Amino acid sequence: MKPFNQTFLIISVAAASWLTACKPNNAATAVSGDAAIKAYVAPGKYDEFYNFVSGGFSGQMSVYGLPSGRLLRVIPVFSVDPEKGYGYSENTKAMLNTSHGFVPWDDLHHTELSQTNGEIDGRWVFANANNTPRVARVDLKTFRTAEIIELPNSAGNHSSPFITENTEYVVAGTRFSVPIGDNQDVPISSYKQNFKGSLSFISVDKTTGNMNIAFQLQTPGVNFDLSHAGKGPSHGWFFFSCYNSEQANTLLEVNASQRDKDFILAVNWKKAEEYLKAGKGVKKASKYSHCRYDEKSHTATSETLNEVTVLDPAVLKDICYFIPCPKSPHGCDVDPSGEYIVGSGKLAALIPVFSYTKIQKAIADKAFDGEFEGIPVIKYEAALYGEVQKPGLGPLHTEFDGKGNAYTSFFVSSEIVKWNIKDLKVLDRVPTYYSIGHLCIPGGDSRKPNAKYVIAYNKITKDRYLPTGPELAQAAQIFDITGDKMQLILDFPTIGEPHYAQAVSADLISKNSTKFYRIDDNANAYVTKGEKESKVVREGNKVHVYATSIRSHFAPDNIEGVKVGDEVYFHITNLEQDWDIPHGFAVKGANNAELLIMPGETQTLKWIPEKAGVYPFYCTDFCSALHQEMSGYIRVSGPGNNVPISFSLGKTNEAEAAK
Amino acid sequence: MKPFNQTFLIISVAAASWLTACKPNNAATAVSGDAAIKAYVAPGKYDEFYNFVSGGFSGQMSVYGLPSGRLLRVIPVFSVDPEKGYGYSENTKAMLNTSHGFVPWDDLHHTELSQTNGEIDGRWVFANANNTPRVARVDLKTFRTAEIIELPNSAGNHSSPFITENTEYVVAGTRFSVPIGDNQDVPISSYKQNFKGSLSFISVDKTTGNMNIAFQLQTPGVNFDLSHAGKGPSHGWFFFSCYNSEQANTLLEVNASQRDKDFILAVNWKKAEEYLKAGKGVKKASKYSHCRYDEKSHTATSETLNEVTVLDPAVLKDICYFIPCPKSPHGCDVDPSGEYIVGSGKLAALIPVFSYTKIQKAIADKAFDGEFEGIPVIKYEAALYGEVQKPGLGPLHTEFDGKGNAYTSFFVSSEIVKWNIKDLKVLDRVPTYYSIGHLCIPGGDSRKPNAKYVIAYNKITKDRYLPTGPELAQAAQIFDITGDKMQLILDFPTIGEPHYAQAVSADLISKNSTKFYRIDDNANAYVTKGEKESKVVREGNKVHVYATSIRSHFAPDNIEGVKVGDEVYFHITNLEQDWDIPHGFAVKGANNAELLIMPGETQTLKWIPEKAGVYPFYCTDFCSALHQEMSGYIRVSGPGNNVPISFSLGKTNEAEAAK
Repeated sequence: MKPFNQTFLIISVAAASWLTACKPNNAATAVSGDAAIKAYVAPGKYDEFYNFVSGGFSGQMSVYGLPSGRLLRVIPVFSVDPEKGYGYSENTKAMLNTSHGFVPWDDLHHTELSQTNGEIDGRWVFANANNTPRVARVDLKTFRTAEIIELPNSAGNHSSPFITENTEYVVAGTRFSVPIGDNQDVPISSYKQNFKGSLSFISVDKTTGNMNIAFQLQTPGVNFDLSHAGKGPSHGWFFFSCYNSEQANTLLEVNASQRDKDFILAVNWKKAEEYLKAGKGVKKASKYSHCRYDEKSHTATSETLNEVTVLDPAVLKDICYFIPCPKSPHGCDVDPSGEYIVGSGKLAALIPVFSYTKIQKAIADKAFDGEFEGIPVIKYEAALYGEVQKPGLGPLHTEFDGKGNAYTSFFVSSEIVKWNIKDLKVLDRVPTYYSIGHLCIPGGDSRKPNAKYVIAYNKITKDRYLPTGPELAQAAQIFDITGDKMQLILDFPTIGEPHYAQAVSADLISKNSTKFYRIDDNANAYVTKGEKESKVVREGNKVHVYATSIRSHFAPDNIEGVKVGDEVYFHITNLEQDWDIPHGFAVKGANNAELLIMPGETQTLKWIPEKAGVYPFYCTDFCSALHQEMSGYIRVSGPGNNVPISFSLGKTNEAEAAK
Repeated sequence: MKPFNQTFLIISVAAASWLTACKPNNAATAVSGDAAIKAYVAPGKYDEFYNFVSGGFSGQMSVYGLPSGRLLRVIPVFSVDPEKGYGYSENTKAMLNTSHGFVPWDDLHHTELSQTNGEIDGRWVFANANNTPRVARVDLKTFRTAEIIELPNSAGNHSSPFITENTEYVVAGTRFSVPIGDNQDVPISSYKQNFKGSLSFISVDKTTGNMNIAFQLQTPGVNFDLSHAGKGPSHGWFFFSCYNSEQANTLLEVNASQRDKDFILAVNWKKAEEYLKAGKGVKKASKYSHCRYDEKSHTATSETLNEVTVLDPAVLKDICYFIPCPKSPHGCDVDPSGEYIVGSGKLAALIPVFSYTKIQKAIADKAFDGEFEGIPVIKYEAALYGEVQKPGLGPLHTEFDGKGNAYTSFFVSSEIVKWNIKDLKVLDRVPTYYSIGHLCIPGGDSRKPNAKYVIAYNKITKDRYLPTGPELAQAAQIFDITGDKMQLILDFPTIGEPHYAQAVSADLISKNSTKFYRIDDNANAYVTKGEKESKVVREGNKVHVYATSIRSHFAPDNIEGVKVGDEVYFHITNLEQDWDIPHGFAVKGANNAELLIMPGETQTLKWIPEKAGVYPFYCTDFCSALHQEMSGYIRVSGPGNNVPISFSLGKTNEAEAAK
């Protein structure tokens, strides 16, 4: 777009008068004239960035294009998705297994793109389940959830899934401390005695991405909130914010807001690795699920694991250090250089910036203010680089532009404030509508931000869009940050509730995108690689339908011999080998969901018919001019009717037809 | 915007050079210069239209703003929605009951806004479930599904839910004929003998909107596809397209594409009403569900009904008439005057336009070509007003602009073609990317279209957006139709698969939008109207938690005395009385979903704990600066531990704490 600045200028002058004239009596609409052009992605053109946005209480992840704010895809992760059959097909059910059984919903709070050398590499995006603690890995070749691992000894997995700069670890901390160990049936009021936190370090295989819990740190009972890894010089360390150092167990609104300072916990995970190697970890019995989706067999499996290795930092003294941080800290963000750690106290009226160098010196000098539950507390001033004074009210999160500036979101004063990391001076502030939570700059928590936009993810929507009854979409706003001042260019509604989001240049991902699955590579146990191989097989009360779909018919499409109460398994293989030619499969009365089957894929629907009759099935995804014709019938007979198994396509039994 | 045309002109000239210069090698991007400004809705400004878009295989309905293409809300209708707890909360489960039991998924194909005097009135929007036949009514004060009625004797409820001009009836026709009656366990090949279609006329109460099946017409076994009511002079009639007049039961792609003409079925429903009054209907035993959501008790109930009244048009000769229509007709659309009925044969290379006046004359003159399965067939030429010659390939649907023009979508030639209804001449054509299905003009099937835009809902996406692996969002495109020529202004991705969609001027709906529920009106059986009334009550193995939520705590937030295996019911009342302050509720390990509770509402989550321990619960919807503190604990004791029921907020038992 660079060569057209002159054109922009003309538009800017012209459009400015239009926009001013149209402006309602609402300061929120003070957009300058070229905003429309900046946010516009013309038909047939691509967005510049993928924006991976957590869905919050939807349990899913959504992918938006920037700067258009268009929703490109909802990726099902922790919640069932009837649209795609996720969690309903026999192939995907296992993805949602946990130690609590099948859990069809969760609350996905943060997205984190994998990194190599501290830069986003476009391979995977991780996400956390907050309610029933888990971490997921989504494969960015397919935009599908590839793996989910449960976290034992955890509750409220909020400060998660942040990664180290070569994706060595994905990290997850408990928001809610709980009783851990053999006797968990204890009074709630015994919090201080019995409740513990835990921080999980999940290793990620460099090649496959496979996750395993390498170790857990058992911590004092507090509420861990957010975290970020060190980078560059501070690589090897992790920083976790925590609130409720009061260790209250009721009315936290009041009782966890008593102390002037809570903590950031600095964790030397390289030191933890040394202890682990030296056998200082304790293996503890803990049940948790590990679920993987295999792309060749198009099938998920889950296993139950029974043990984790736990390190105790109250004993292994040089792993963990508390740093005092005002007040009820939420965000905990590390700048691109790795030297500065920004704590955002949601009840604070300043922003403390800690220095990695000073923290190291404080530890070497033992500049401690005693201990908290066995863990050394570094003196505030000894760790502090400086404070941003009067930045705004209720700082929550900070992202970086790689040019020496930080952008902090303020929930209470509802604004983004830009400030300089070195001199801690405020440079710019813009209002957000309303009550911003997270914010995102592409690569804004990595070593190499791409500082074109900052996106505000707001918590309150009210009058920003046409009303939709009591329930409203959440609201996001895009600001151009290429100039000295932030410029609002677009409001866009978001699905679910976005918490953290990340963005990345489109080319890092688009070039590797899988377009379809090769049928030759299909290793599903029930694959049908050609229509001639299609068949219906009875095994006791199980009936397996091996069927194919191709424009515009299923083979077979007439099936008889099924009985009331049989378990019917429709194994549908989509024989297409072209991009964007999915087929769907639905059968009347099924009490799970459809199948949505991508080209080259096999998916299985289980159906137990309860009443005799003839049931239609059909393709649910419009696939050709004759899509409406893509249907079939399955006959279900009652106990008194001994109809043999039969199946066909295109053949009409004239003798039967005459009956 | 009218006063600013001069400004537009300037922008247009300036931006045109920019857009031309940026244009990729893809004819699809031939947008003219003012498109960006036309599609742009500045931050803080409202869209002009609500666009109610069917979600297809998502089973939901989505609401977009026009012209921005922004997704304002997904309304859960026929599929469970873990994001909102729809289908999971005890309050909403009953909405998805059917004669097949609880059905958590369906395929929602068409949206239809209620009308008064043939104009959209903004009260309700109806939708059809295609797979397990049902019709839903969504209340546009709350944007919530208020009612769902199942359709017995039906399969593939596709030609639905189209309405008469005063919303007297919502109509639903079967796409798949099936055996009906006592013995449905018959050979599939006996289609011609045993399979029947059915058309349901569902009455709608003028005041409450409540639906009831007034009567069904039993028809020959064919595939009804789409339909529209007459209006003005043709009010009292309904028109249904059908394919598969070959009555094939396998490989329909070939076998249902044999005949040059299939049919449009013209139904004189006023005549049917007369027969009904005269007692000519036959009551037939048929099980079906009727589900209603009560806004005062915030609770759904469902009942099973056992009987429908059926009229047989092969006996009651003057209700139904077939009109031949080339070839495999899909769309069946009536122009604003009510005189012209447009049939779109998806394998036809012309568009037949039928005349209501000529149809009436043909019936009076008995200008018939015999009968089809007992129903008179009007001679093609006797019903025909004329044909649009060489309009394009694969016509599917037609909408109207109220200025004498029709806009028809062409799937095969991938375009929208504008033509004049009187002289049947083609006036304009634009390409669509790719393979358009439905299209929509605001009010475009009513007596009073608001012809500002036509929106194309395309079936193929391929390269229109950044790739997201094998699965892509569907694609819609907005065209400005205020001039003689259609002008493409925006591409926007859509969620699920959009089929029919309708749009309406925003003010018709926005002015009536409910902002919150009055707590004084809350008639839920488990409501807690103030914190002082909160309590926990054991009844056998059931534990009822009567709790409240208000920024930023639950009352109570410490609960003990629950035992493993108890059925715990969390009845949460949101005490807030302000717009956009929902609270959520989640408890670790729950195997249903969260609750999302609007201000003034009570919702109930059922939880059966399986293991002793202390479980956190928390608010899932960011509600205040102290939202993270909005949490609590519930203790679950094992069989050997006789902990009495207790509950509290803000009180710590110091004796217990010391244990």
